[in-house]
Amino acid sequence: MKTIRLSIIGFGAVGQGVARSILSKNEYFNENGIDLIVVGISDSKGSEVDALGIDLENALNRKKQKGTVANGKESALEIIEHVEHDIVIEATPTNIDDGEPGLSNMLAAFNSGKHVVTSNKGPLALCFSELREAAEDNGVLFRYEATVGGAVPIFNLIHEALAGNRVIRIEGILNGTTNYILTRMTEEMLNYELVLKEAQELGIAEADPTYDVEGIDSACKLVIIANSIFKEDATYRDVDVTGITKITPEALELANKNNYVIKLICEAGNGSLIVAPRLVPKKHPLAVGGTLNVASILTDLAGRITIIGKGAGSIETASSILSDILYIARNS
Amino acid sequence: MKTIRLSIIGFGAVGQGVARSILSKNEYFNENGIDLIVVGISDSKGSEVDALGIDLENALNRKKQKGTVANGKESALEIIEHVEHDIVIEATPTNIDDGEPGLSNMLAAFNSGKHVVTSNKGPLALCFSELREAAEDNGVLFRYEATVGGAVPIFNLIHEALAGNRVIRIEGILNGTTNYILTRMTEEMLNYELVLKEAQELGIAEADPTYDVEGIDSACKLVIIANSIFKEDATYRDVDVTGITKITPEALELANKNNYVIKLICEAGNGSLIVAPRLVPKKHPLAVGGTLNVASILTDLAGRITIIGKGAGSIETASSILSDILYIARNS
Repeated sequence: MKTIRLSIIGFGAVGQGVARSILSKNEYFNENGIDLIVVGISDSKGSEVDALGIDLENALNRKKQKGTVANGKESALEIIEHVEHDIVIEATPTNIDDGEPGLSNMLAAFNSGKHVVTSNKGPLALCFSELREAAEDNGVLFRYEATVGGAVPIFNLIHEALAGNRVIRIEGILNGTTNYILTRMTEEMLNYELVLKEAQELGIAEADPTYDVEGIDSACKLVIIANSIFKEDATYRDVDVTGITKITPEALELANKNNYVIKLICEAGNGSLIVAPRLVPKKHPLAVGGTLNVASILTDLAGRITIIGKGAGSIETASSILSDILYIARNS
Repeated sequence: MKTIRLSIIGFGAVGQGVARSILSKNEYFNENGIDLIVVGISDSKGSEVDALGIDLENALNRKKQKGTVANGKESALEIIEHVEHDIVIEATPTNIDDGEPGLSNMLAAFNSGKHVVTSNKGPLALCFSELREAAEDNGVLFRYEATVGGAVPIFNLIHEALAGNRVIRIEGILNGTTNYILTRMTEEMLNYELVLKEAQELGIAEADPTYDVEGIDSACKLVIIANSIFKEDATYRDVDVTGITKITPEALELANKNNYVIKLICEAGNGSLIVAPRLVPKKHPLAVGGTLNVASILTDLAGRITIIGKGAGSIETASSILSDILYIARNS
């Protein structure tokens, strides 16, 4: 049995989803020869540290009751740098202004010889090359499946499962909120404002929906894909972005009559990075509805490979984080 | 640079596709730190062996002109057992009566300490457990992505990219010929015999289409999936199979009017293995047309993940074989 010690930095929906999944899948990991132990958890109010392994059920209950996991004072950086462990799960919220605190957390992890698994898009959308180099310089692994596509394993699919292929181009729907809004507008012939309100009531859209509906979230994800696959050195500011706020029910209806749907499509290839509403034939694999995410990858040998799945949710995101943890456990 | 020496056993469409892909992607492999050298090729009439690396362009031309690669007498088994190399690419034709010659070739490879990458369904549909154990006993790797789904990396997706998940159930369309026939019957309201004839003229169906249209090919693929994912010890004879020969244009039209399509669906989960025509809602991710293949994987954390791509073709199959070769190069 190989023991892998983790810290969970950031204990919101994603961090708690990871803790719950580790709890519920203990037996599964043991079958795979791996024993996962969480030695540190931190949130914005404090932390818990236990070198012998934190009682995750207890930590989750405390978080639920008190709003924080804190029963100690160690900062995130103190845990990352001074508590002995193997992998830092960086699950603090995305910040696309300066990437903090995720950026400092990830760099501290690499510089103290720890692998990083993250769901935090901000640092990768701003400083991908710097992070990749820091990991390489320190001989540790950097895995970020959860940053794009929720449960859909886009990076693992391309880098491992399609390893024999060169990627020519990638297109996708990488934001479930906008996909939901466009799908509902088409199905019910409702205008943007009404459907946005519905999505907010259902918790699918944020109170301030700008980040999703203006295409910023999609642009962050696209730039992570481009950097990862095409080894580019782009930031989300290099993406040519148009959101969905100007789409009318009439435009959707006209598309529908001609057997098309309108989708907010992300495209990378030939050095260009574009997020914009596009007409997609109804029978095209990209024409998925609801909150689904999809990526369609054009390769030199395999041709076009399309993958579809849930783009959000704390357990779905935890799925990608756990797969990355297992990858590191097998390859380190 | 890591040198990986290969033999290609079976030099039909798949074997030649592998040779062509290795030729065209030499630079790509070098970028990945890998130098691929083919030290032996055999077909039904003879073989070529060169410990320093066969000139693949020359071998492909000779095959084209003379119908065989043979310029020497070594048998497949002699190459596998006595020529020093790392990976045997087993690409002889599928035989579902006794799995030969693939079965003996694979066992000989394992017993002489060589990894196996294969596109040959027969031995796996008949003796999966025996092969898995032989590989484990000899401490070598057994990879068979190309046996199911052509270019679609189903096994790598499940075992690597979705590693954190337990698979609950899998459904899919794993035979492009029957999908083409059902799609054309629906679109053109033509009967089975007419569309079969068209598919035969286009090279999509064989002169004797039994293996495809009676669901045997689908059953072989389903049983490989079940054995691989659910660690079952099933053979293709354990699959409950119904083909597509009794589907009428009227049944397809009735389905169509109710927003369904009829597809030959493979299902594994809860210990049952079924191949049968099913009604699928038109908007369901499984409702892909033409010769496409699709697999929809229900997992405990990620929910449903669907992957779509080309299920056949020599270069598409080579894509899966090359990805398996790279996996072995990275993990051995």
